[in-house]
Amino acid sequence: MVEKIIIFYDIPFAEPSICWSPNTWKTRYCLNYKGLAYRTEWIEYPDIEALCIKIGAAPTDSKDDGISPEYTLPVIYDPSTGQTISDSFDIAVYLDTTYPDTPQLFPPGTRALQSVFAQYASSRIVSHLGQFLRPAVFQKLPAGRSQEYFRRTREASYNVKIEEWAPRGDDRVREWRKLEKALVLLDGHCRRTKEEIGGEFICGINPSFADFVLAGIFQWCKEGFGIESDEWNDISRWQDGRWADFIGSLEKFSTVA
Amino acid sequence: MVEKIIIFYDIPFAEPSICWSPNTWKTRYCLNYKGLAYRTEWIEYPDIEALCIKIGAAPTDSKDDGISPEYTLPVIYDPSTGQTISDSFDIAVYLDTTYPDTPQLFPPGTRALQSVFAQYASSRIVSHLGQFLRPAVFQKLPAGRSQEYFRRTREASYNVKIEEWAPRGDDRVREWRKLEKALVLLDGHCRRTKEEIGGEFICGINPSFADFVLAGIFQWCKEGFGIESDEWNDISRWQDGRWADFIGSLEKFSTVA
Repeated sequence: MVEKIIIFYDIPFAEPSICWSPNTWKTRYCLNYKGLAYRTEWIEYPDIEALCIKIGAAPTDSKDDGISPEYTLPVIYDPSTGQTISDSFDIAVYLDTTYPDTPQLFPPGTRALQSVFAQYASSRIVSHLGQFLRPAVFQKLPAGRSQEYFRRTREASYNVKIEEWAPRGDDRVREWRKLEKALVLLDGHCRRTKEEIGGEFICGINPSFADFVLAGIFQWCKEGFGIESDEWNDISRWQDGRWADFIGSLEKFSTVA
Repeated sequence: MVEKIIIFYDIPFAEPSICWSPNTWKTRYCLNYKGLAYRTEWIEYPDIEALCIKIGAAPTDSKDDGISPEYTLPVIYDPSTGQTISDSFDIAVYLDTTYPDTPQLFPPGTRALQSVFAQYASSRIVSHLGQFLRPAVFQKLPAGRSQEYFRRTREASYNVKIEEWAPRGDDRVREWRKLEKALVLLDGHCRRTKEEIGGEFICGINPSFADFVLAGIFQWCKEGFGIESDEWNDISRWQDGRWADFIGSLEKFSTVA
């Protein structure tokens, strides 16, 4: 019998069934929010390129950040249309278009603004968090091939040893404060809609793609640093628990299936 | 008889009735788009602070860019409510709220995303253009007090002599290409909505605040460099005239009254 549910390709930690990548989290939230049936296939880092070539998934291109196209996850394969889609934004557009009767990820007319939001979150928050999180993520990847691949590619891209990446001492305190400040500024933008129509989400009452971008970043923090870590404890307390509440409000869409 | 139309405070060039500031242009577009009656009062740079204090206009605060609060234009005074509002975003919110029967600047639920868009345009385009445009703007300000004020404050803020600000030679070519690239990337975001629902504008068929942010930047280029300049000629030709077409599509809202 031919399987008809969507296959969602995600990147594993050593511990099973942990979704941690901010990019794959976006797609997982999208699938869960739409209530679409899917199953996860866990693909270790060094196997991503071969998988993508085999199933015809295009490399993705973060042009705004000056990163060359590369084979990355998330990727989905949808047997009901025979299509393979890469890039979390393109996947979201595909899912809204292919499944118009499920909750929509983009309120009509907001795709351009949502695309800019994703870029803003990437350049103001993800790029700043990387120095703290990538060394922590490295420790949790499967030992051997995944760790070796991550070390080789990241040390080449960022020109820094994994062990020397995270800032220390006063430097760490200063860089960590910058993250807090970036989140205060982001909250300032979010309040604009809250003042207009209320709701907990970026476009108001219902979550949309932009919320999943942001929630994916917090999941990356939670899983990468660990739920008991000082870092996650800090983030959870900032702005009277504003971000902990935000993640909590999306909990029903955070199943790892 | 008490005047009942909105007073819009703008910053003059030496040549009369030229609106050139990317920030005041946003508000001028908003007023024109809504069809609200207003008249412009031209306030030279060194007189802005005293005006704001006199009429009770709050200083504005571009926190994302690390700029301290300062007295800036645009400011409007609305005699029908007795309110004075500063900051182009706050003015737009005020106008939508106070005049709900005029065309709305923010499609419902988009204020947070539009606020992020304005920040993106500021950090990716305005901040890059400044090195080219501020020396050109300086030449067109009223000689004497305005030029003296602009030189003193900008040279202190940016720590560079006006005459040495604009890049030259190969450096200029390289920096100018970066601007073209930033606009290509911006267009990539804009296409997301175009693919969804068509229309020439960031949210589709109708212009919204984000379009006026962007059009204000192009007006700054057009008036600052001059319509006959090589720079404006370049921008008009980029991407098959995409930005010239965009400005053209908003021409009916660009009256300087």
